[in-house]
Amino acid sequence: MKNREAEQNKQATFNKGKSREKDPLPSWNNGQAKQTIIEFIKKVTDPGNAQFVAMEDRIAVFDNDGTLWTEQPYYSQMAFLLDRIDDLALQHPKWKKEQPFKALLQRDLKNALSGGLKAISEMIMATHAGMTTSDFDKLIKAWISKALHPRFEKLYSECVFLPMLQVLEYFKSSGFRNYIVSGGGIDFIRPWSKAIYGIPPSQVIGSSIKTQYKIVDGQPQLWRLPEINFIDDEEGKPVGIFANIGQQPIAAFGNSDGDIQMLEWVTSREPSLGMIIKHDDALREWSYTKDTLLGKLDHALVMASDKNWIITSMKNDWRTIFSFMD
Amino acid sequence: MKNREAEQNKQATFNKGKSREKDPLPSWNNGQAKQTIIEFIKKVTDPGNAQFVAMEDRIAVFDNDGTLWTEQPYYSQMAFLLDRIDDLALQHPKWKKEQPFKALLQRDLKNALSGGLKAISEMIMATHAGMTTSDFDKLIKAWISKALHPRFEKLYSECVFLPMLQVLEYFKSSGFRNYIVSGGGIDFIRPWSKAIYGIPPSQVIGSSIKTQYKIVDGQPQLWRLPEINFIDDEEGKPVGIFANIGQQPIAAFGNSDGDIQMLEWVTSREPSLGMIIKHDDALREWSYTKDTLLGKLDHALVMASDKNWIITSMKNDWRTIFSFMD
Ligand SMILES: [Ca+2]
Ligand SMILES: [Ca+2]
Repeated sequence: MKNREAEQNKQATFNKGKSREKDPLPSWNNGQAKQTIIEFIKKVTDPGNAQFVAMEDRIAVFDNDGTLWTEQPYYSQMAFLLDRIDDLALQHPKWKKEQPFKALLQRDLKNALSGGLKAISEMIMATHAGMTTSDFDKLIKAWISKALHPRFEKLYSECVFLPMLQVLEYFKSSGFRNYIVSGGGIDFIRPWSKAIYGIPPSQVIGSSIKTQYKIVDGQPQLWRLPEINFIDDEEGKPVGIFANIGQQPIAAFGNSDGDIQMLEWVTSREPSLGMIIKHDDALREWSYTKDTLLGKLDHALVMASDKNWIITSMKNDWRTIFSFMD
Repeated sequence: MKNREAEQNKQATFNKGKSREKDPLPSWNNGQAKQTIIEFIKKVTDPGNAQFVAMEDRIAVFDNDGTLWTEQPYYSQMAFLLDRIDDLALQHPKWKKEQPFKALLQRDLKNALSGGLKAISEMIMATHAGMTTSDFDKLIKAWISKALHPRFEKLYSECVFLPMLQVLEYFKSSGFRNYIVSGGGIDFIRPWSKAIYGIPPSQVIGSSIKTQYKIVDGQPQLWRLPEINFIDDEEGKPVGIFANIGQQPIAAFGNSDGDIQMLEWVTSREPSLGMIIKHDDALREWSYTKDTLLGKLDHALVMASDKNWIITSMKNDWRTIFSFMD
């Protein structure tokens, strides 16, 4: 009897050791970034640890563009916008002569964006408003199922960072609720976030235009108005998170100066984790910090050491970037 | 062997019968309202039924004041506001002479509200803004733990409708996510919704004032500004639901004309359930429909039969109203 018990204990210890050894982040190289994530998860999920966090308070927030998927050579939502401009141009012949549409049709982004916020607002309203929320949902689902990324020639849904998918899964299986907190449009992300990131629509926070309740063809609908409702960037990120969740997250991942306030707010308490994805891999993806139009990373890098934010180097910390490269 | 199997089958059938007989809504009298709720839950959770709904789409929305707890003689949030006016009056001696504060201090609500939206906005901003979200959270928690309802002399958290607590529990245990969708302040409800309704802060939708991210005493905070952000009533209810969840619920409970658009939107698809709580029990609670300042129920009653919304009579359908009466 004793021998049998000893055997069982041995087996239990072995199993425990095995499960401990199972790597939750196989696409991450060993290093400070990976180690910090694993240690963070271990301490907040261990009831014996002084920094244990109850399940209902385990909330993690993730920027989307440049943090969960690639944002170069331009945001995916811009790619959608350009495709939609092409589709709508048939009904708007005068766009061929009118800015910013003329420049957009010629794919001259620099010129199109030179009109500043007013031009950007015009492009968004022309392509994203004036329809029901269900029709917009259908448009996005149709687009994301077939549009290809210009460099990788893969679906945008394949241009997600495999190491970050593993982080999402690791957090989720550790009792976290993962939220996307994007400067991009909430209704651009919601139609596919569940399928691609395992994140349901209710856990997506983003910029939005106003909607109006009205009866369309006898059916109650929400109509997308050509009016900005909320900009979920910089100071807007903590504001949007609190408005949506009513709680302060304990982990935040971002990649640009637009994430500073979110990182600062989340890491102002302990325990917490703040992480910045640094794009320094021109060969496998892109390399850019402060000299870029999109995803500028400047002040956040300067603040990182003082604030204890971990810098993840895509070049050094990520064994693989996209699953299609694996 | 055969006999044993027969016995087991018999037992299984018996157990099944027993569990079927277990009443999920013991504080509801038998009748159309109770029957409709039970049949709805059965069909949407039965994978064999043509109207089966996947778990991720089982979303139910509940108005708060007058639907989940009593709203007479005035909204609980108004009671909080009055108590806070008293507390703050010491720092604002001129309130004794200034409307609407003078009338509020004298508990002359009719006069206080005679100033219309401008007066209401002044009262709200004086009592609900000008502090951090964490300080407001503490204020509400302190208030709800001790303030007593003027008629029942019970904590407000005890003035919740027992039959509705059973509905919340029944829906939740049937795989639903329950959301509060209130015309009242989201940050007034979130501090206690989990403890009282089992609904976490992220599942509360309500009216809100704007917040601003700023550093207060060296700590990042969200500061409550004296400016309306969103009114979650009438057309605002479907708008607020979609902004927060990104999905259309399949069940809605309300008690006044402010819930018409929410009910109409939710019940514009099948399967769905729309229900109106009718206050017709002056003895145990209150009796009011269209002749009331708060919770006016007029058009919704007219629309109900055409829209297939079920009217719940508090007098006839509810065996008990409050647990302290049980
Ligand atoms: Ca970004
Ligand atoms: Ca109500």
